[in-house]
Amino acid sequence: MMGTMGTAFLKGHATGNDFVVLPDPDGTLELPAARVAALCDRRRGIGADGVLRVVRTAAAPEVAGDRRAEWFMDYRNADGSLAEMCGNGVRLYAHYLVTSGLAEGPRVPILTRAGLVTAEVGPGRVAVDMPVPHVSGPGTVRLADRELKGTMATCGNPNLVCWVDDPDPLDLTRPLGVDPGTFPESANVEFVERLTDRHVRMRVVERGVGETLSCGSGACAVAAVALAEVGGDGEIVVDVPGGQLTVTVTAERCVLAGPAVIVAAGTTDL
Amino acid sequence: MMGTMGTAFLKGHATGNDFVVLPDPDGTLELPAARVAALCDRRRGIGADGVLRVVRTAAAPEVAGDRRAEWFMDYRNADGSLAEMCGNGVRLYAHYLVTSGLAEGPRVPILTRAGLVTAEVGPGRVAVDMPVPHVSGPGTVRLADRELKGTMATCGNPNLVCWVDDPDPLDLTRPLGVDPGTFPESANVEFVERLTDRHVRMRVVERGVGETLSCGSGACAVAAVALAEVGGDGEIVVDVPGGQLTVTVTAERCVLAGPAVIVAAGTTDL
Repeated sequence: MMGTMGTAFLKGHATGNDFVVLPDPDGTLELPAARVAALCDRRRGIGADGVLRVVRTAAAPEVAGDRRAEWFMDYRNADGSLAEMCGNGVRLYAHYLVTSGLAEGPRVPILTRAGLVTAEVGPGRVAVDMPVPHVSGPGTVRLADRELKGTMATCGNPNLVCWVDDPDPLDLTRPLGVDPGTFPESANVEFVERLTDRHVRMRVVERGVGETLSCGSGACAVAAVALAEVGGDGEIVVDVPGGQLTVTVTAERCVLAGPAVIVAAGTTDL
Repeated sequence: MMGTMGTAFLKGHATGNDFVVLPDPDGTLELPAARVAALCDRRRGIGADGVLRVVRTAAAPEVAGDRRAEWFMDYRNADGSLAEMCGNGVRLYAHYLVTSGLAEGPRVPILTRAGLVTAEVGPGRVAVDMPVPHVSGPGTVRLADRELKGTMATCGNPNLVCWVDDPDPLDLTRPLGVDPGTFPESANVEFVERLTDRHVRMRVVERGVGETLSCGSGACAVAAVALAEVGGDGEIVVDVPGGQLTVTVTAERCVLAGPAVIVAAGTTDL
């Protein structure tokens, strides 16, 4: 029976954001939304935050004419919907390409729906360029009966960065009150404790998902706000519940770095 | 790199209770609690409600002298602690033994920490004998500001079966108030809607876990209460969030039946 499980997969994570990786170099896999949802189902499937289909650019119709990268990251959310980019996802994707021998490294260009991303794959650490965060004005969020003040920052998606004394006691299981006037498409909300000028600790509630162990764009938004407040640029260490990220922000670049690991490989009949 | 992932595993579920199956016929696997927890971690591991180690009785020191069954189900909870039995776990275990060719079927004796269990493996359906439920007196549970009346039933573990008009709208994310006087070791609580005399629909909150998609002993407790109220024995269909179970209760036996499926197989370095 085991021999009939025809689809190869890997399971891995990047600071606790986990993914099912589907090697499909020639683009032969049928991947309708229902199949992605079945793969990502945490009880009845393999379970993951999303699927990373590993397909050659030339074999992916939506980008087949693009010559900038050999590999295209076909990223899907756990519900099967298409997604443009995912900082932690692309870090795991790049790690897989190099460890499996599909790409040479350490520098790996990867095409995503948000454009070209270049990853740098080192031992135990993968770095990728993210959109440079844009820090704007103040905003507020309601958490139970408290109102917290924060700073808005976009990093591909909208974020609200809130400084707190200690994020641990916060009950983040209840819905957050994000002001729809300020954030018409809602926002990720980060609750951040400053440990030093160059080291922060955060918890994050992602829009449409709830609390997660890590959020790449959220970490970049936090780093940008933290740097803006001390008036500089450079490197910030960001502790997330799933591990430790390093974000380097300058006027031109924002680099997200941290571990990525494959923990299992096999076949599935999902 | 993929070649170094040395431990074979399978992932499967029985009505939404999911397990990592570790084939270890000769009992050579080191399985400390931390490793079980790493395997069951839903983000950083493979993810499951528990681990089923498949080991020959002769190779398992704790039962090595027992000649009643060739296979021992070494069941561990997701946190790594030992567990005696799990109705849905033993159904998946038996399904794996037969589909992998390790046992012939359809009848498969399996040794567990709670004693000998005999499974009956049919196409798409695995049945196992469970402890015969004992229905006792009334009990109550607090859910938010409501107090619900129920009937206590033990099925290896303590249960409180509460009839409701519709379990769907209940918010089961908040802690339940189970009376410590009545249930000194807490209890599983089932919220059950009667569809017909022989068909019920339930949601379940397992002690120490929270709401789950299925609970074998809970389904048996519900069936026993449902039958006691109409004064009979026989077969009851129990819809759980993860699928459909059938429970057959007589004075001497309680048989739990339903689907069990392996969805993936591979190797891991966890």
